[in-house]
Amino acid sequence: MKSDLDRLMTERNIDALIIPGTEEPNPYRDYLANGIHAHATVIKKRGSEAVLIANGMELDEAAKSGLKVYNMTDFGLAELMQKYKSDQQAIGREYWRNILTQLDIKGRVAFYGVGDVMGTWKMLKRFERDYADLIEIVEDEDTSIFALARRGKDADEIAKLRDSGERSSKVMTETREWLAGHKANNNVVYKADGKPLTIGDVKHFVRLKLMEYGLEDSGGMIFAQGRDSALPHSRGEEDQPLELGKTLVFDLFPRPIGGGYYHDMTRTWSLGYATPEVEEAHRLVMYAFTQSLESLTVGQRTRELQELVCDIFEERGHPTPKTKPGGSEGYTHSLGHGIGLDVHEAPGISNYSPDDRVFEKGDVITIEPGLYYPDKGWGIRIEDSVYIDESGTAHNLTDCTYDLVIPIQNQN
Amino acid sequence: MKSDLDRLMTERNIDALIIPGTEEPNPYRDYLANGIHAHATVIKKRGSEAVLIANGMELDEAAKSGLKVYNMTDFGLAELMQKYKSDQQAIGREYWRNILTQLDIKGRVAFYGVGDVMGTWKMLKRFERDYADLIEIVEDEDTSIFALARRGKDADEIAKLRDSGERSSKVMTETREWLAGHKANNNVVYKADGKPLTIGDVKHFVRLKLMEYGLEDSGGMIFAQGRDSALPHSRGEEDQPLELGKTLVFDLFPRPIGGGYYHDMTRTWSLGYATPEVEEAHRLVMYAFTQSLESLTVGQRTRELQELVCDIFEERGHPTPKTKPGGSEGYTHSLGHGIGLDVHEAPGISNYSPDDRVFEKGDVITIEPGLYYPDKGWGIRIEDSVYIDESGTAHNLTDCTYDLVIPIQNQN
Repeated sequence: MKSDLDRLMTERNIDALIIPGTEEPNPYRDYLANGIHAHATVIKKRGSEAVLIANGMELDEAAKSGLKVYNMTDFGLAELMQKYKSDQQAIGREYWRNILTQLDIKGRVAFYGVGDVMGTWKMLKRFERDYADLIEIVEDEDTSIFALARRGKDADEIAKLRDSGERSSKVMTETREWLAGHKANNNVVYKADGKPLTIGDVKHFVRLKLMEYGLEDSGGMIFAQGRDSALPHSRGEEDQPLELGKTLVFDLFPRPIGGGYYHDMTRTWSLGYATPEVEEAHRLVMYAFTQSLESLTVGQRTRELQELVCDIFEERGHPTPKTKPGGSEGYTHSLGHGIGLDVHEAPGISNYSPDDRVFEKGDVITIEPGLYYPDKGWGIRIEDSVYIDESGTAHNLTDCTYDLVIPIQNQN
Repeated sequence: MKSDLDRLMTERNIDALIIPGTEEPNPYRDYLANGIHAHATVIKKRGSEAVLIANGMELDEAAKSGLKVYNMTDFGLAELMQKYKSDQQAIGREYWRNILTQLDIKGRVAFYGVGDVMGTWKMLKRFERDYADLIEIVEDEDTSIFALARRGKDADEIAKLRDSGERSSKVMTETREWLAGHKANNNVVYKADGKPLTIGDVKHFVRLKLMEYGLEDSGGMIFAQGRDSALPHSRGEEDQPLELGKTLVFDLFPRPIGGGYYHDMTRTWSLGYATPEVEEAHRLVMYAFTQSLESLTVGQRTRELQELVCDIFEERGHPTPKTKPGGSEGYTHSLGHGIGLDVHEAPGISNYSPDDRVFEKGDVITIEPGLYYPDKGWGIRIEDSVYIDESGTAHNLTDCTYDLVIPIQNQN
């Protein structure tokens, strides 16, 4: 939780943290500054509330954070721009020295956020050179203090995650019902206008539904058919008509329009009928899914849950990362991940999760086993997002039938 | 243009460039790898075509780039994961040494892309320590080789930018027409259902229109009224009903759904009527806008165009950044920016643009003068996106009336 940051800063001997005011979507800033739409810099000293530095045009927006907001001119920017004109390096050097001095920032400083790679490197190398008298730049651990703080969702965050889950589930359910209203001819699904129903049509419908529920598909949903559904990161081919008896992997991970907490869920459908092979594999994925949900426990190593699923699959002859890492057949990925202001957050749930990575109260994670056989033309994945409450009980935030087959009538 | 990269790498003594395979939207990867939806790493040695490194699940998607694709396992990743288990630092250290060695990357290497700030810092510090025998990490100039290459749009890019412009213009024009179809009562605009028309309603309409034209509002449009329209970065308040006689600044900067080239345009509207003060200011902004478009010339310092606009405004008594940087009244920002795979690209057009920043053939830029008076409750901005062709002629990619007033009928 946000309130853990001071403790975490103490544990890792971090005196201050800085989130540079980059233009990119920035979950770190969203987290500390309550989702403001401003490219403000965020600075937090250990033991103090975070403060913002914004330009004159963004002061009002920045103030919505409820945090103290400084104008960039408070640190002499206007004078420096007059003094150095287009010498931006000279301006930046004095401007940042003014900030560090006026806000009394010194010691071990850690930089977080999202930004241009070259820009980050140059900025921090300059800090390393120019302010060595004041600060030392921290290399945080691989699981950063933000990853740790953001893992523990508070009541307000859970309410938002639950809300995104309810809305996402409705979109998926209504998409399923809408698909069921179509008819097929010669194994191809058709629209009322006589044209084949394509994956592009489905995605268009989903986007409209998302909008109706105040959500946006910021990451690019997966709706992939047949062989594509066996390539877990294929998004599906827009022009491809839907066909009966092929697997459709529908992975939806929207967030509220304009930003906020994500939901992440996946269903696998087969229109009209499913082949016996796919039906059996779907049952097995469902079994792995329910087994992992049932055994999910606070204090358990996340890796153990992945290994449980690997064992279930391997016993039935499917390759997994446990014995064949990097493979593209069978179960080919990790079991899940935390979810919040990012689609992918801590904790990871993989074969390579370290010993000390255990499930904790306040975790919101996805559980998403799957089986993939590109050469056989089918893939299956089932995914829900789950919250572990204060008592250690897991609550499913996703609510949508797992049924594989969507019955489709034939034309005439 | 992309074909300039080798020359630019030579000029800046860069032997290879690496775009790490981060999860964030990444215009650098989009540019070099033709917009693939994969988190692949991109590596380009000077004089060679770029290559990709993807995980097993993303190979098919990565192959759509048309570039040579390596599997991460080609560099021993599977063996390293077996060997080092959860020691990700050890895995990463050997994995990257394998890449550098097998692909024969040495000398001055520059890193680009978009990524986690702490992640970037840690990764590059490790490179600096672990591979000092092989490489030196470049600090590129503030205008990077990518900024320079991406400035010069080729015919294919211009076609895409033109297409985004046409579609965006239609969305704005149809939004204007839709607004004009509403009626007012007591200076408030109402919907057919008898409820006031809010900014949230307008944004919903715009999002639907965008979707109809295959566009998405990935950055968060501005539709701001009255005082908010004078705060150039306010997005507008969702619940606010539209009122007659108040300025509405509508800044739209969508891109094709799923990624691609942006368009950026702004209109200022006043429903029913405009106050004489706003009418006069709108005429002045239009004058500054047309004057800057007319004087735009290849070889001209971009700063000069900003100064021209500042002079126009200052002569009429409006403060500008030329004499009062950082102010929040009058003209408060820079005149424009390049546009492409990012909303903001090179060149900038500001008072602080250096002497050698001049307009070039192939530039696609926005021109967006404005006047803002928060305390008077109004703001005005006009913005088109413009392409400078091979002959140095400027072509407007935006096509939408500049008219300030949208007539609105009264109810009854």
